Amino acid sequence: MSFKLVVDSLFASPYAMSVYVALTEKGLPFSLETMDLEAGVHRRPPYRDLALTGRIPALVHDGFVLTESSAITEYLDEAFPAPQYTALYPQEIHRRARARQLQGWLRSGLMPLRVERDTESVFFRPTNVPLSAEAQLCADQVIRAAEQLVDGAHLFGQWSIADTDLAMMLQRLIVNGDPVPPRLRDYADAQWQRPSVQRWLAHHQPN
Amino acid sequence: MSFKLVVDSLFASPYAMSVYVALTEKGLPFSLETMDLEAGVHRRPPYRDLALTGRIPALVHDGFVLTESSAITEYLDEAFPAPQYTALYPQEIHRRARARQLQGWLRSGLMPLRVERDTESVFFRPTNVPLSAEAQLCADQVIRAAEQLVDGAHLFGQWSIADTDLAMMLQRLIVNGDPVPPRLRDYADAQWQRPSVQRWLAHHQPN
Ligand SMILES: [Ca+2]
Ligand SMILES: [Ca+2]
Ligand SMILES: [Ca+2]
Ligand SMILES: [Ca+2]
Repeated sequence: MSFKLVVDSLFASPYAMSVYVALTEKGLPFSLETMDLEAGVHRRPPYRDLALTGRIPALVHDGFVLTESSAITEYLDEAFPAPQYTALYPQEIHRRARARQLQGWLRSGLMPLRVERDTESVFFRPTNVPLSAEAQLCADQVIRAAEQLVDGAHLFGQWSIADTDLAMMLQRLIVNGDPVPPRLRDYADAQWQRPSVQRWLAHHQPN
Repeated sequence: MSFKLVVDSLFASPYAMSVYVALTEKGLPFSLETMDLEAGVHRRPPYRDLALTGRIPALVHDGFVLTESSAITEYLDEAFPAPQYTALYPQEIHRRARARQLQGWLRSGLMPLRVERDTESVFFRPTNVPLSAEAQLCADQVIRAAEQLVDGAHLFGQWSIADTDLAMMLQRLIVNGDPVPPRLRDYADAQWQRPSVQRWLAHHQPN
């Protein structure tokens, strides 16, 4: 049983982070391959043809090549289910739907916010540029949604991968000094302290 | 048991279409509510606060409000599973992962293509504007991926919601006269003939 995870060489992709955390939470050992996105390696063969969508992250599991982070985490949760392995998604149907709703939104919406508060600003160098009106509307919606859902250490009772993904979105605001209610700051900072997240963040340290 | 589906008043959203087709394929009766996105109704209360993400489509099922189309279709497939109801996702784990990979990619990637070949150009008025270089690269990747996956009437043996979603992306090219290999054109056109898809398209007819 062998896993390889292909990530970006900066370890900046929040989607690569999501899968990295998922594999780590499940205790599944994996090798890492890094790809220089700025050099466009992923847009050319062989990766472009190997990976169906030509995007990272990719999981290679015993020859099965899969991209799109939420497809990967769903696959891992099915192939390595609770209770033997840590659950990535809530067990109850409505909570699981909420987790998927959040993941879908964080990946396909909120683009102005994702652009103006990119992960380089979270992981490497914060920005002083104020949010545009459009990005502020996105930030307002994120905070409103988080205020509805956050009521303890984890969104859905136990930890789920949606916690890591939502914390990432909140850290885009927190690290850059945009106003975030203390309760949500505490939630996001506690999620950031998880050993699996700390292991990802450690990749940013210079050797 | 009551379902309401909230869609855009133009019936142009490919994500609203996906959920509409899913409900119809499952034979689940639902009422429709339309929302005028251009008037920004969704960005204000009450919808903005009811719908967590303030986006359409939304499914309201016995009071449970859910947005993000793939979260909705996953929920429907779990709450109303095969074999009693038509399956929306493949039963086998690797095929199901591929279906999710496709759905994720079509929703979060390919933005230049989605902008330059928007659904209004598919449903209402084709465009003569040639694809930009960036959008052409997206089109090339879509065609490459489809050529790998399409080998019969449906991607994964039986019909799945990924067929409808991929056909939508291909129709963005086909309807606007961009080159698409005949085999993929036939696939996408056959998917467009499904009664569930035809019912959605009929909403575009003037009364
Ligand atoms: Ca700042
Ligand atoms: Ca909660
Ligand atoms: Ca044309
Ligand atoms: Ca196939």
